[in-house]
Amino acid sequence: MCELLGMSANVPTDLCFSLTGIMQRGGSTGPHRDGWGVAFYEGKGCRIFHDPAPGAESEIARLLQRYPIRSCNVICHIRLATTGRVALENTHPFRRELWGRHWVFAHNGRVPAAKKLPLSHYRPVGTTDSEHAFCWLLGEIRDRFPEPPQRRRTLDRFIFERAQDLDGHGIFNMLLGDGRALYAYCSTRLSWITRRAPFGAAHLTDAELEVNFAEVTTPNDIVTVVATHPLTDNETWTEIGPGGMVIFRAGTPQEVTPDGRFRPPPETPKYL
Amino acid sequence: MCELLGMSANVPTDLCFSLTGIMQRGGSTGPHRDGWGVAFYEGKGCRIFHDPAPGAESEIARLLQRYPIRSCNVICHIRLATTGRVALENTHPFRRELWGRHWVFAHNGRVPAAKKLPLSHYRPVGTTDSEHAFCWLLGEIRDRFPEPPQRRRTLDRFIFERAQDLDGHGIFNMLLGDGRALYAYCSTRLSWITRRAPFGAAHLTDAELEVNFAEVTTPNDIVTVVATHPLTDNETWTEIGPGGMVIFRAGTPQEVTPDGRFRPPPETPKYL
Repeated sequence: MCELLGMSANVPTDLCFSLTGIMQRGGSTGPHRDGWGVAFYEGKGCRIFHDPAPGAESEIARLLQRYPIRSCNVICHIRLATTGRVALENTHPFRRELWGRHWVFAHNGRVPAAKKLPLSHYRPVGTTDSEHAFCWLLGEIRDRFPEPPQRRRTLDRFIFERAQDLDGHGIFNMLLGDGRALYAYCSTRLSWITRRAPFGAAHLTDAELEVNFAEVTTPNDIVTVVATHPLTDNETWTEIGPGGMVIFRAGTPQEVTPDGRFRPPPETPKYL
Repeated sequence: MCELLGMSANVPTDLCFSLTGIMQRGGSTGPHRDGWGVAFYEGKGCRIFHDPAPGAESEIARLLQRYPIRSCNVICHIRLATTGRVALENTHPFRRELWGRHWVFAHNGRVPAAKKLPLSHYRPVGTTDSEHAFCWLLGEIRDRFPEPPQRRRTLDRFIFERAQDLDGHGIFNMLLGDGRALYAYCSTRLSWITRRAPFGAAHLTDAELEVNFAEVTTPNDIVTVVATHPLTDNETWTEIGPGGMVIFRAGTPQEVTPDGRFRPPPETPKYL
């Protein structure tokens, strides 16, 4: 299995704090030694850093923990290989272009049966079930909507239903984004937290590091982080729950319940 | 205009020496301040580093000059913006997937009229004429060959003819690769050099740096570097010449003359 990390914010925000936490799980506090990758959107642009080396030992990962890339949408993945050998082409996140936008995908779980799903526009470069599932999913979206649908909800619902289809093939925790929305589908485990004013201090579970967000934010900032396991030990993270999805836009969550209802998620107390 | 740099080799080779030279042209010895990018293939995998910051001042560029990523196929681009604002999405090289392989493209020149060419499978994310030309070119390949053609020469010739079409729309110096072949099409200016045993020392034009390749290679290594302007001042580089193309595979060149004949390029003396 792997670790997922995503961010959605209403102002360009750096992810150095959370990256420092999750990279420890790449061979130090966690066993996820088989490569890592992170995609940062900057407007419509998107840059992905990939490294088949363990995150805890990666020179590029060290750079990203101290070199702040500010982004409103980030998707990160730390890999523990289950299917597909350890190689660059099997390193998440994966990216393809649809409607002139970069779509980025990362997966935690196993969906070996999904490899039988027929592909149309997109083909995998590597050998993982994850990339195959992504190519199928994006091809389905493209077949159904040759142009982006007018109503956002139409697309959101379609993606939710196809994610449920993939979930039926195994374990399918997913982060998917196009630079505006971040889709977080939960099969077994995925948690999130929204930080907004009044900001406080957060302490990492995986490293001796604390940040007082009040010192690095403005009162209007909304920053949501989603991860396989909570990254901090003094804040309340919300679990999405099996079969559910949360869609984040500019840091603001929109919940989709397992039976397909859209609603704002319930308020949760912020600090433990 | 911009600076192109490509590498094709028969063994994974790092490009630190040449990158050190060309990054100087990004704001130090050259005016190409508007971002840079480099794609490294590792097998079928491909990682791209992009930075809208000047190469000469970029933290990521500095990392790549000292952190050796070994690759058999590299495409690099240093940008001086002509069309399209300075932004991540307008930063070369561009990448799309075709036939389950990553295709990477970088362009030097201007082909504004190419923006009227109709697109099919691929759409640009940014606003440059270059990315539009790439989307058109790859779409043409895909329309003509839904599956890869059996004969390599068939594909090579098709790419050459489409590159000539694009050249008819302005100035079109191009590097295009799929991880196996590196296509170098010359509209106005593009030079290359193949280094093989017996190796000697090379001295950078843009920085006080000399490398004795004999110390870092084996007798079987073949390493070709292609660039807008020669990067060293004590070796003989071969100019491709307007309307011509050279295809490099595992470091070995195959020339296509402007009238479409395929031939091995003439031998040139190696050192000045």
